[in-house]
Amino acid sequence: MERLKKQMEFLLELDKMKNLYRQTYIINDYDRHSGESESPRPPRKENDAEHSFHLAIFAVILSEYSNVPIDLLKVIKMVLIHDVVEIDAGDTYCYDTEANKTKRDREVKAADRLFGLLPDDQQKEFRDLWEEFEAENTPEAKFAVALDRMQPMLMNYTKDGKSWKEHGVHYDSVISRNSKISNGAEELWAYMKPLIDKSKEDGLLL
Amino acid sequence: MERLKKQMEFLLELDKMKNLYRQTYIINDYDRHSGESESPRPPRKENDAEHSFHLAIFAVILSEYSNVPIDLLKVIKMVLIHDVVEIDAGDTYCYDTEANKTKRDREVKAADRLFGLLPDDQQKEFRDLWEEFEAENTPEAKFAVALDRMQPMLMNYTKDGKSWKEHGVHYDSVISRNSKISNGAEELWAYMKPLIDKSKEDGLLL
Repeated sequence: MERLKKQMEFLLELDKMKNLYRQTYIINDYDRHSGESESPRPPRKENDAEHSFHLAIFAVILSEYSNVPIDLLKVIKMVLIHDVVEIDAGDTYCYDTEANKTKRDREVKAADRLFGLLPDDQQKEFRDLWEEFEAENTPEAKFAVALDRMQPMLMNYTKDGKSWKEHGVHYDSVISRNSKISNGAEELWAYMKPLIDKSKEDGLLL
Repeated sequence: MERLKKQMEFLLELDKMKNLYRQTYIINDYDRHSGESESPRPPRKENDAEHSFHLAIFAVILSEYSNVPIDLLKVIKMVLIHDVVEIDAGDTYCYDTEANKTKRDREVKAADRLFGLLPDDQQKEFRDLWEEFEAENTPEAKFAVALDRMQPMLMNYTKDGKSWKEHGVHYDSVISRNSKISNGAEELWAYMKPLIDKSKEDGLLL
């Protein structure tokens, strides 16, 4: 029972990811089932739970595009827990260079506390998976990172570049940040690169 | 490219799950990283993307409690897609007996359209997984269903029964609906049952 109690505490703690908002906007910000037809809601940013859900299903649907064979279960575990540290460390916007200087320190401290809620064996498994994701060296980490780059980009593109425009993001930054998609999945990068070019043409990026 | 385009269309469609609200409230409805410390927000219901994320991580952390050995990857795929049909069919509140009469018809139509966005092989895989979840006959489906029962109950309990009170839910309904947790994981039911009893004692349930 002691073991299960620890696991439950960790699972309930993860509820906080539902209130950690990122810079990406969700695409469909109207309520389809409110009784009124498609009643409008104000634009809303995506939270970490939604982002992690989306990445997990991206992994399931797109695993065939990995450059090398991967352990899909491992990739899914990675994307499900890759942002858990933000419960304590907050979301660091990827194009904010100042905040990114302290990111690693804040996130390591968060990982200590959050994965520390779990029983020892699971603490080790998920801490190791998080470090593996951060290091981006293994096939699974490269593919997981590719998805983590691709999903917000695809969302921003589909949402007329709303978040890019608000932050005045440059074409070159998006290319340099996202070209590493090709480390995990060259075919996915071949699909995304033309969308970034088009975003520049259409004035969504500086 | 035709195949990848279909997969992308499906993945973007799933963004709509972020705007499909359930009856369960999220537990932590304050913003921890807003600059103000723990600034309060109005209570908010959980959406399908958040619920599915939470179930996937429940599956990862709790798979050891399944009554019989299970294919964890299959369970995760199931919980990730089990509510996709609600994009078209809407969320049917589990204690609403009228709406539940038309649920199956509405959801089958939704499954036709939504999984139909995918390439044929994946359409078959995920449609079959959804039907397997609904039928609750295999070890993976029984475990996935157990988690789908357990997560909202745990959330409601932790949130002082807010959703139960709003709907005037009876102790007997909760017992009869959730006792099937034991079909997938007896130890998890042994953990949950006392929480339901305590909820009655504390007046969270009628």
